[in-house]
Formats: sequence, structure tokens, C-alpha cells
Amino acid sequence: MVSVGIDIGGTGIQVGVVDGEGRIIAKRSIVTRLDIPFSEQIAQMAQCVLDTLGDADMPLSEVRSIGAGIPGIADPKTGVIPFCTNLRWHNVPFREEFHKHIDKPLFIDNDATVAALAESVAGVSAHTGSSVFLTLGTGVGSGIILGGKVWSGAHGVGGEIGHMILELDGESCTCGNRGCLERYCSATAIIRMARELVDKHPESQIMTACGGDPGKINAKMVFDAAREGDAVGAKVFRRYVSYLGQAIGSIINCLDPEIIVLGGGVSKAGAFLLDAVRQEVGKTILYKSMPFARIELAELGADAGIIGAAMLG
Amino acid sequence: MVSVGIDIGGTGIQVGVVDGEGRIIAKRSIVTRLDIPFSEQIAQMAQCVLDTLGDADMPLSEVRSIGAGIPGIADPKTGVIPFCTNLRWHNVPFREEFHKHIDKPLFIDNDATVAALAESVAGVSAHTGSSVFLTLGTGVGSGIILGGKVWSGAHGVGGEIGHMILELDGESCTCGNRGCLERYCSATAIIRMARELVDKHPESQIMTACGGDPGKINAKMVFDAAREGDAVGAKVFRRYVSYLGQAIGSIINCLDPEIIVLGGGVSKAGAFLLDAVRQEVGKTILYKSMPFARIELAELGADAGIIGAAMLG
Repeated sequence: MVSVGIDIGGTGIQVGVVDGEGRIIAKRSIVTRLDIPFSEQIAQMAQCVLDTLGDADMPLSEVRSIGAGIPGIADPKTGVIPFCTNLRWHNVPFREEFHKHIDKPLFIDNDATVAALAESVAGVSAHTGSSVFLTLGTGVGSGIILGGKVWSGAHGVGGEIGHMILELDGESCTCGNRGCLERYCSATAIIRMARELVDKHPESQIMTACGGDPGKINAKMVFDAAREGDAVGAKVFRRYVSYLGQAIGSIINCLDPEIIVLGGGVSKAGAFLLDAVRQEVGKTILYKSMPFARIELAELGADAGIIGAAMLG
Repeated sequence: MVSVGIDIGGTGIQVGVVDGEGRIIAKRSIVTRLDIPFSEQIAQMAQCVLDTLGDADMPLSEVRSIGAGIPGIADPKTGVIPFCTNLRWHNVPFREEFHKHIDKPLFIDNDATVAALAESVAGVSAHTGSSVFLTLGTGVGSGIILGGKVWSGAHGVGGEIGHMILELDGESCTCGNRGCLERYCSATAIIRMARELVDKHPESQIMTACGGDPGKINAKMVFDAAREGDAVGAKVFRRYVSYLGQAIGSIINCLDPEIIVLGGGVSKAGAFLLDAVRQEVGKTILYKSMPFARIELAELGADAGIIGAAMLG
């Protein structure tokens, strides 16, 4: 028996056939079309599932279940997607619509939650009883796994750690609130802090890296500069690590998971980031002499979305 | 069969014999003695348990288990209390020591966690699958119940929502960090904000209530003044509700429990506080049109500590 995972993104949709050990045995992708109604988008996804099963030479009878990771909010119970800004979806009955094409058990959840599940089954948090996964990208996505299962909350609106308040009356967030954690712990935060500083420090290496256009600064440029001793880079890095360390310390004080997994673009800074964050977290947790969560980098990379979606069943 | 609950506080220790429905059938208390070694303190607690069972005419053979709520950190697995500032305890082998006197299954947990459990079994959060309990007192204690069970985390250091960061580089906390949630959502925060304001507004009703001595201001004086239209009282109340609303919104965005229960001294403000907080939470949650946690007042009052401790088994 196999499972199928669908990783739905704002620009592309990845489909994979996954075996019982979490290995992808066939993979396809289609472009995300925002110019067609959701019913057609879902019909294309279903066709892509059938095509990928064909690639794997696997009849539908061998498929245990199908799962989809949604870049927005998903209601796992009803199979409805109340909001998905990236796909311009609103109250889309995803499961019902999908079942018009393929009649197999279908599960949906938020994409960060799905990546968290993938890591907890086949990645760095495998064999742990509890984990929190943070994707440090444009925003901060998160997934909570407790007792080996996804915890999306009682109404399916939990696991949004990126929108916990880290600073009262702080930076404006896309969600309409101020001071959300993702305004301080995302790649976007790194870029914002760097832009604010290079104005006064045009000699920074970051200005060379971005060709003199602060609008082209990305998080990698800033961290590379920090690694090479650039003063602006180092200052932004220290501030970012302080914010992320306090955020992770807060998660530990609240949930105390066995492991915290860092994924997303910012986590590609690897040990340089990880070592600094671990030190900072040690300073901010409440019970400083007690054992606390390991902090590790995600292992599955871009495939986590497919693998985790396949595991939803 | 009955259970025994021990509610250990910094000034007094309450012991109760509790039946299967969470009703207290006999109750005693002793004074907390800080001038004697922990072995003697625990011997006195055990004697009080035997005395209370005597009051209830209940032989030890009828006792299923004994539980204790600790005003500090407790390791439910080992039965050891790593820290308890209120009792001046450090690495106390509570279970081992207690078993020298009474050989019954003994369970321990943090006192706020224990109160959370009591409410989830016999109080306002009974029959819910998940709840978060906040005691709004001198600090902010908390307990997380998931799937009907206490969630203290993988290392027993979780459930400390009062020490999540709500304000980067904010008010100094007793824990050594800055900006902890309890610095903004406790009775202590209400008093601090009022003291700051009455200096400039000696005409405030709060100054009359405290007899002209800001050192004697308490949270009730401030909220009473707010209720009666005093400008300073109203300003502190609005700020407090904004902080607590954002804190609860953060808990919902992260954990999405079925219900959030408010206990502790501040919660005695009742509907006046509850109505304002509910409105504020509605503004700060991420998915504003989705159903989210009910916010309710605790029901069990001072007995929650005994009942919850008895339920630990």
C-alpha cells in the first residue's frame, strides 16, 4: 500500500506517491493556476495524482489515502478550506470536490503542520513524543505534534505560533495585529532590520551584495555578511538570534516539547544560526538548570510537504 | 474508594478527602512551616492526611491515591521537586520522603496545573477535550489540559504561560527575563500601572481607597474605581484588558483550546472583566470569522487545589 501527498503552493503544486517508510517513489508537479475556478484547480490536482500513480505503476486500489498540505487554514474535520489567500480560496469544500474525481480517504491540513508531521515521521524529530516545527521564511509557519499526532486545536485554528504576540504594540503584521512573532523571526524581519541599518552604513558589505539597491537585500546576504564580520550583518544577526531565542524560549515555557525543529529559508544558515540560537534559548527559559527541548534543523527539505501530506492519513 | 488532595501553599497547606465525583468529604489545614527541614514538613503533611481520613471515618485501604499541588516546579515522573521558592525547597525527593509515612500511589504537579485539572474534571471546563487555565494573581500561573490529561511537557517544564514573552525588552520579571506575560496580566501589573498614574492624578478615587498611600493599592481598588467611572481606574482597566486580550489571543493562535478558564484574584472582577476580555480577544485572534475558545471564569474557587490534586491519580 502507498499514500499520495499533495503539496499545494502559491506558484506550484507537487504530487508524490509515498511508501510506508516515508520514501517518495514517484513525483510530478503542475503550475498553480489562479485564473481558473477552484473546481478546475482541484480537477487538475486529481489528474496529476492519477498521472503520478501511473508513473509509479501503482493502481488506485493500492492507495491507502491521499493528503494535501494547504498554504492557509484547513479544517481537517470537514475537509473545508475556510481561507487560503495564496490560492484566492474562500470556503472551498476541498474534500467534497476532490471526491468527485478520486474516491479515496482524503485528509487536509495547514502546510507547516504537514511539514512538522513529515519531520516527526521520517525526519529529524522521528521517534519523539512531541515536537514544534517552525518554518522561518517570508513569514513564520508552525506545526505542533503531540503524542505523535498533529495538534491543530479544538477548532482547527491553532498551531499559528507566528501570530503570537512577541512585542506589544510592535511592528504591523499582515494579519492586522501588531507585534506578531513572525514580524521578528522571519526572513522578512532580517531584511527589514538590514534595510534600516544600511541607510546609515552604506559601507556595509550588504550594500555590495545587493548591488547598491536595498530593495534587493535578502536574508542570505545579511547572514553571509555577519559570518564574514560585517558590522551591520553582525548587528542584525545578533538581534535576530535574540528575537528567535526569546520566541523559542516562550514556546518551551508554554509547551515544553521534546524537540524544536527549524526549517524554511532562514534555517539554511545551518550551524552558524543553530549554535547562536541554542545559546540564546538557554538564557531565556524559565528553569535554566532543567533539561529542555533539543533544537535541531529540519532534514527533509522541499520534500517535507509531500511526505507529510501523504502521512496525514 | 476516595482520593486525597494536598494543596501546598507558601503560608498554609490544605488537605482534603475527595470522592469519585470530585466532592470534598473532609478537609483540614496546617500552617506551612519554613523553619523546619523538608523531611519534617512532609511528615506533618502525612500526619494531616491521616487525621483528615480519620475525620472522614475512612480507612487507608479505601484510598486510591494521594496527590499534591506544588507552588513551584514538580517533576510528575520522578516525584522530585527541583525548585520551590515558596517553600525554600531545592531538589526535594517528595514522593520518596512521603512514602516513608504513607505507602500509597503519590502524584505531584504544579499548583496551577492542578487547579486546571480540577476545573476540567469538576468545574467550568468539565467535559471539554482541551483547556487552558490562567490564574491571574500575584503572578500568572497556568495549566494546559489536552485530551483530558495534564500537559506538563516532555521535561515537566511546560505550562508556564506566565513566562512567555509578551514584550521584547519589557518589564523586568522575577524570573530574570524581561517582558514576561505575567508582568502585564497579573494583579501586580494592575497595581504597578495604577501607582504610575496616581502620582500625576492624586484626585483619583484610587487614592481615597488606599488612604493616600499608593503602597496599599490593590487590584480590587483599581477595578472598583474603573467600574465607578474613575479616569485612572478606567485607563488601567483598558490597558490591562488589552494586554490580557492579546495574551489570550496568542494562546488561541498557538494552542486553540476548547475553553480558556480565568481564575485567581483578578478573575473575581467577574462579568465586568470577562465581557471586556472577550471583546478584546475577538479582535486579536488570527482567524476572526472562525469559531474559537470560550472564555469563562473558574468555578471551584479555593477548593480547586485540593480537588485537582486528588484527581492527579
